[in-house]
Amino acid sequence: MNFPIKKNSTNTFINKANLGMQLEEAINESNIYYLAYDKAVIHKKPTPVQIVKVDYPSRNKAVIKEAYYKTPSTTDYNGIYKGFYIDFEAKENHNKTSFPLANIHPHQYNHLMHIYKHGGIGFLIIAWNHYNEHYLLPIKNLEKFWVRMENDGRKSITYEELKENALQIKEGYNPRLDYLKTVDNYLESNPNVIKGTIE
Amino acid sequence: MNFPIKKNSTNTFINKANLGMQLEEAINESNIYYLAYDKAVIHKKPTPVQIVKVDYPSRNKAVIKEAYYKTPSTTDYNGIYKGFYIDFEAKENHNKTSFPLANIHPHQYNHLMHIYKHGGIGFLIIAWNHYNEHYLLPIKNLEKFWVRMENDGRKSITYEELKENALQIKEGYNPRLDYLKTVDNYLESNPNVIKGTIE
Repeated sequence: MNFPIKKNSTNTFINKANLGMQLEEAINESNIYYLAYDKAVIHKKPTPVQIVKVDYPSRNKAVIKEAYYKTPSTTDYNGIYKGFYIDFEAKENHNKTSFPLANIHPHQYNHLMHIYKHGGIGFLIIAWNHYNEHYLLPIKNLEKFWVRMENDGRKSITYEELKENALQIKEGYNPRLDYLKTVDNYLESNPNVIKGTIE
Repeated sequence: MNFPIKKNSTNTFINKANLGMQLEEAINESNIYYLAYDKAVIHKKPTPVQIVKVDYPSRNKAVIKEAYYKTPSTTDYNGIYKGFYIDFEAKENHNKTSFPLANIHPHQYNHLMHIYKHGGIGFLIIAWNHYNEHYLLPIKNLEKFWVRMENDGRKSITYEELKENALQIKEGYNPRLDYLKTVDNYLESNPNVIKGTIE
């Protein structure tokens, strides 16, 4: 995750794109590690696409010729860890001082709150690129900021608020982003979370 | 699910396509019901697509101009029910006497076995169209037929074998396919299934 200092705006653009991919890649690699070592089964969901036109240039071969990206109704990642249902969204934050809640679709917030109510473990993984740090923000801890946005219109979380409400994820070599260790820490300090609120 | 008798080959083709969609639609509608009544949060994953070419005819508008269907590495549906991780694949069977195992990708079989080992509930939903019946086949019960295929090359399950190893799903009005009631029945008769085999 250590990148050389950027030298010009073109490089900055490229590097930002790379950083975006880096979070996804770090999570995907960690998931491969978890699967290989029988720690968890967590996969990224495919990007939702509305397919409009498909050509069949030959038998058994389909080429999609027109399609559109759809707004996701759920999150990027889900799976199972220690028998628990895990569900999360991963987001880059390029801002220095705050994380804009516009990064999260209302559908995704509602989905993660549902997961929480049903006894699953729902959270965001936020890469705070300015400090090269990663945080796990449990959905229940996001709730108050979401409600605040709805009440008084404040549309972001400050860095200090994140540090108070999220758990920092340690980076390492293998897995690169051991977020399930952070889930362990969360469960240890919140043993009731997995009961859910629906009987 | 009661269809009029087909009269000619064109209708047969259309009806088969409809039946294929009917299973997916019945499951999707049931999932909407489960979500609305706070019973479970289960979603269909997007179809995996390899995107090759994207055009941007205007700002903020992306049109995918070339893409290909990818072989799915996991299953169509997953989610949470009563705190348990749920994962399944839904398949139409148009044969009268047997279900071809070629309907299931090896990746999907291995994925569901992993889910089982981690304490999740993995299964197939099979629509046996000839009899207008639906079955829930727990992955652990599929295992012996998969191993048999690898050992002696028998590539299908007979209808009688399915009836012995699967649980029939009752059809209804709302939800149309109450497969979670069938999951309840399965859990009642297999209380150890949710412990998994990995500590």
